[in-house]
Amino acid sequence: MSTFFWTIPTQNVKNINKHAVVDLIRFTAGGISRIELSRQMNLTRAAITAIVSDLQAAGLVREIESHYPSGRRPIVLEINPDRGYVVGIDMGATHVTILVTDFSARVVREMDEPLDINQGPAVCLPRVESLVHQILSEAGLSIKDISAVGAGVPGPVVAGVGVMGPPIMPGWDGYPIRDDLEKRFGVPVSLSNDAELGAIGEWAYGAGRGERDLAYIKVGTGIGAGLLLDGQIYRGATGSSGEIGHITIEENGPVCTCGNRGCLEALAGGRAIANRAIQEVNSGRRTVLTEISPVSQIRSRDVIAAARRGDLVSQQIVSEAGVHLGTALASLVNLFNPSMVVVGGGVAQIGDLLLEPIRETVHQRSLLPASRSVRITSALLGRRSSAMGAVVQALSIVLHRLSEHS
Amino acid sequence: MSTFFWTIPTQNVKNINKHAVVDLIRFTAGGISRIELSRQMNLTRAAITAIVSDLQAAGLVREIESHYPSGRRPIVLEINPDRGYVVGIDMGATHVTILVTDFSARVVREMDEPLDINQGPAVCLPRVESLVHQILSEAGLSIKDISAVGAGVPGPVVAGVGVMGPPIMPGWDGYPIRDDLEKRFGVPVSLSNDAELGAIGEWAYGAGRGERDLAYIKVGTGIGAGLLLDGQIYRGATGSSGEIGHITIEENGPVCTCGNRGCLEALAGGRAIANRAIQEVNSGRRTVLTEISPVSQIRSRDVIAAARRGDLVSQQIVSEAGVHLGTALASLVNLFNPSMVVVGGGVAQIGDLLLEPIRETVHQRSLLPASRSVRITSALLGRRSSAMGAVVQALSIVLHRLSEHS
Repeated sequence: MSTFFWTIPTQNVKNINKHAVVDLIRFTAGGISRIELSRQMNLTRAAITAIVSDLQAAGLVREIESHYPSGRRPIVLEINPDRGYVVGIDMGATHVTILVTDFSARVVREMDEPLDINQGPAVCLPRVESLVHQILSEAGLSIKDISAVGAGVPGPVVAGVGVMGPPIMPGWDGYPIRDDLEKRFGVPVSLSNDAELGAIGEWAYGAGRGERDLAYIKVGTGIGAGLLLDGQIYRGATGSSGEIGHITIEENGPVCTCGNRGCLEALAGGRAIANRAIQEVNSGRRTVLTEISPVSQIRSRDVIAAARRGDLVSQQIVSEAGVHLGTALASLVNLFNPSMVVVGGGVAQIGDLLLEPIRETVHQRSLLPASRSVRITSALLGRRSSAMGAVVQALSIVLHRLSEHS
Repeated sequence: MSTFFWTIPTQNVKNINKHAVVDLIRFTAGGISRIELSRQMNLTRAAITAIVSDLQAAGLVREIESHYPSGRRPIVLEINPDRGYVVGIDMGATHVTILVTDFSARVVREMDEPLDINQGPAVCLPRVESLVHQILSEAGLSIKDISAVGAGVPGPVVAGVGVMGPPIMPGWDGYPIRDDLEKRFGVPVSLSNDAELGAIGEWAYGAGRGERDLAYIKVGTGIGAGLLLDGQIYRGATGSSGEIGHITIEENGPVCTCGNRGCLEALAGGRAIANRAIQEVNSGRRTVLTEISPVSQIRSRDVIAAARRGDLVSQQIVSEAGVHLGTALASLVNLFNPSMVVVGGGVAQIGDLLLEPIRETVHQRSLLPASRSVRITSALLGRRSSAMGAVVQALSIVLHRLSEHS
């Protein structure tokens, strides 16, 4: 980073240090020792000991023996998992994923249900509320056991409050989503863009652990990217960064939901994949997709499933989508020079059939210094990346708050 | 910015505060008062007074009456311009710009000379050295009066040391440019990518004053972008971010210097503009460019000059380049959501003939939330943006160092 001017922290230093200690503890796999905390934070051992004592007294942090294979097992610190629970909610265009975790982000219950985001907040949010009550009851818990909720939506989130001008969320523009959810649940809610949460989830617990410059691309009905730059989530001037789904790939290509032509999403999103399949069936090509009736009901997940069962036409459609994704990601790699690109979302569950054409196209279409330093990998958390990111954000609210009062 | 984890400053807090005070003073037009420093830095009035006293004692900072039009004129602080001088050097593909400024970044002497970057460091760096001695002597100064040098090169700079894999700098790959210049001048040298310096220059003293999310695009022989994100220069994982010249605009377009097809640079860079003009002349179109002989000697600056004199063919070529630039910038706007895009470099000196098709295409091809919040403007510092950025970096070295010892 340039040092030509400085951003001054506006919080008091003690809280900043407490947050940093809590974060180093929660994001270091296997726990972290006091000595290591002191080294990484450039604080004296005494200062670290004082902070850790406060956190222990508040029940937020506990000591364990580290999992060294043999010999001396130093004492390390971890978040006390039994201190409470949070909920992570990932609303996609067609489904919702809900996770309940303890304070160490261990999943105690998981749910994936259909949800049509086009029905708007008046239908979707009550449905999400009742699903949360259902999953909590399945886990033997109630909303009273929950300390915070993290939620993600497939649109540009402004100031953590609601969405502005989302191409695939009619009826949601300007709706105060966070406030609505806080009223429903009676706990603090963190609201973010779903692709941003995917980047956070994969950074914290997935393929991107420890990366400082990471792009997560979510390939589902819509296509969006979450950007972690220099170790910080980058949202842009008005919260709508990462709209890779709407960069132009073919100047005179097919019309997109946003009104333009030749956007990536119109060529490689879930709808585009389904439409290509419908075209192929209608043109009489030999494919197992002809079994689906009526033809217009073919969805991208049918194409993915058929490709997995060896259907050549479906494999070709997925592979072509990979080339388009690769062209767009090459632009991203040329502009951002990330160390890692994580490909997630429903369509990405097909794995290397999509990843290989992406890798090949990125390496062909980006400059050598950037292309040889970027790893392109599928999401380690699978469909859960964004929901886990929502859990991370919920835990940030509650762990930081509790640490301040410790 | 997300607060889910913290980057811990590794320098001591006193130095960080001194750098911040110096930077607030130098980048606030018209000076800044102690009260305002105290407010912006969230430090007590006493702490600010102590820091400012040190800086005054070291002769770095001085008091002036503010330029309020009438009434009470409060005392404000500014950098002491007479404390010393720095040099800023901007090496382009075909020319070099050199500025000599005082400590307040006021230009005392300016020079623009041809330089063929393709001749490599063994020819270019001695030439730059002798030009620096020449401009200093013209200004009545010598290298002994210079406290630091900032330099820019048109390639991806790694760790401030040299360039890696630059498409338009044969012979420079891996050469220790900064060390070479430090030996030649005997003062600290800061080395950066030229487009990055353009962003810094326009942010500090040009069209982008005070912006937190700014992209500067340099349109010359090569095309590159400098990115200021969340108030910090973003360089990417290996220093090669901002390579917008090599994002794909036409999948099967013309071959680029980088080896790929259809890159922005191959469609809208200086060479592409000259080649289009040569084509038009060879195909017998009516244009003043036919006066240039041999035809193969037409350069982009001839096309710009002809367009300025009303030549329709030249205007059309520039306008088409603008559309291609707009398509690439729409991708950048969709991905980054900057508040401002500054268009600079030699080709951009034509102004709105290039800017208008850029604006139109960006607004057509980027999503509404991002497109309605971005201003697209030409570089206020003209051809000087990068050289002024080099001055900013040189002054950062010397002002921060002196402040630490104050």
